[in-house]
Amino acid sequence: MTVEDLGARPKRRRAETVERLLDAALETFAEVGFAAASVEDICRRGGFTRGAFYSSFRTKDELFGALFARETTRDLARAEQQLTGIEREADPVAAAVERCLSTFRADRTWVLVLTEYRLHAARHPEAAAALAEHAAELHTRLTELIGGAATRSGVRLTLPAGDLARIITALHDGSVISHLPGAGPLDDAEATALERTALVLLLRAAVSDPAPTD
Amino acid sequence: MTVEDLGARPKRRRAETVERLLDAALETFAEVGFAAASVEDICRRGGFTRGAFYSSFRTKDELFGALFARETTRDLARAEQQLTGIEREADPVAAAVERCLSTFRADRTWVLVLTEYRLHAARHPEAAAALAEHAAELHTRLTELIGGAATRSGVRLTLPAGDLARIITALHDGSVISHLPGAGPLDDAEATALERTALVLLLRAAVSDPAPTD
Repeated sequence: MTVEDLGARPKRRRAETVERLLDAALETFAEVGFAAASVEDICRRGGFTRGAFYSSFRTKDELFGALFARETTRDLARAEQQLTGIEREADPVAAAVERCLSTFRADRTWVLVLTEYRLHAARHPEAAAALAEHAAELHTRLTELIGGAATRSGVRLTLPAGDLARIITALHDGSVISHLPGAGPLDDAEATALERTALVLLLRAAVSDPAPTD
Repeated sequence: MTVEDLGARPKRRRAETVERLLDAALETFAEVGFAAASVEDICRRGGFTRGAFYSSFRTKDELFGALFARETTRDLARAEQQLTGIEREADPVAAAVERCLSTFRADRTWVLVLTEYRLHAARHPEAAAALAEHAAELHTRLTELIGGAATRSGVRLTLPAGDLARIITALHDGSVISHLPGAGPLDDAEATALERTALVLLLRAAVSDPAPTD
């Protein structure tokens, strides 16, 4: 057994602890809100001591940064997988929306928590700076994803991929916030249908299709 | 002096008190958030006693309902005025966006406060029910406004005016929340430009222009 082997198990265990802390934090933030959630609440829900929390994160804000990275990386990976091969579909725009909609709609808890953090950041400059850094990273990767899908599909975007990335994100976040489950005028199926309509409208306007030739 | 004259002055004074309470509440909610704002905070900011508050509203939630009605009625009246005569513009869609954008962008404090209330409503069924009622009223009036402007401009909408109303609202709310002043990656001019681009894209896709003839 080498020294590296001896270090591998604690490292893996630590990563598992972080994952479970993030799960507990997401649930706690969703239930009571970021501001109202205490480190104690998060630890209680996850079955951790405060020591376990503070050996992984210095503050609740630092944990939020890790949560942001995990949730957005997961969503991006899913979207990337779902966009694979859309260039072979008869209608790549409709296919892209249909395939990604389930991922979009599944992350409503995350959008709620992110929105609350944005409101928190609007009142706390340090949180705003950290959020801006995370958001810039996400924006870069989402821009690449959209630009890549457009190139492969042979469509030309009528605006920069980065602008389209921001508009799609704003539309999605606004759709979720306007129609939070239990608090909006629409039921889930209606809200999903409306978001589909909005995304298809927007994307059709954002691509200039090559004239159909055959 | 008639009995009615005797009653008119207190009535006017009471209406003024309500207006100033709503101003103080909007500022307080924007500064510390709906949940954190106490009735005492609102009264202190507006220079009122708690008695003045409770003679106008039973609860903070009831005050929010009055604030919702005031803010949205004001925005709708402005938008209605701004849309007057767009049918005489060469490009009614671009004109509608350009004219309404300043009203849209001026109400960011309200969007912030409304968003916080939506998150509150997602956790408080009674607040959700009251919000749904107010939102339905706004939705009806916004749908009429959009439908009327489309008819006067001689454009056919490619989707129901009610759906378009919901999509525009979601896009606007999402744009504001993604780019809150001081907390977003864009400065104010960039955020305004992006919202203009998004609205023009969306509306061009939502209207089927009559072929230009002259």
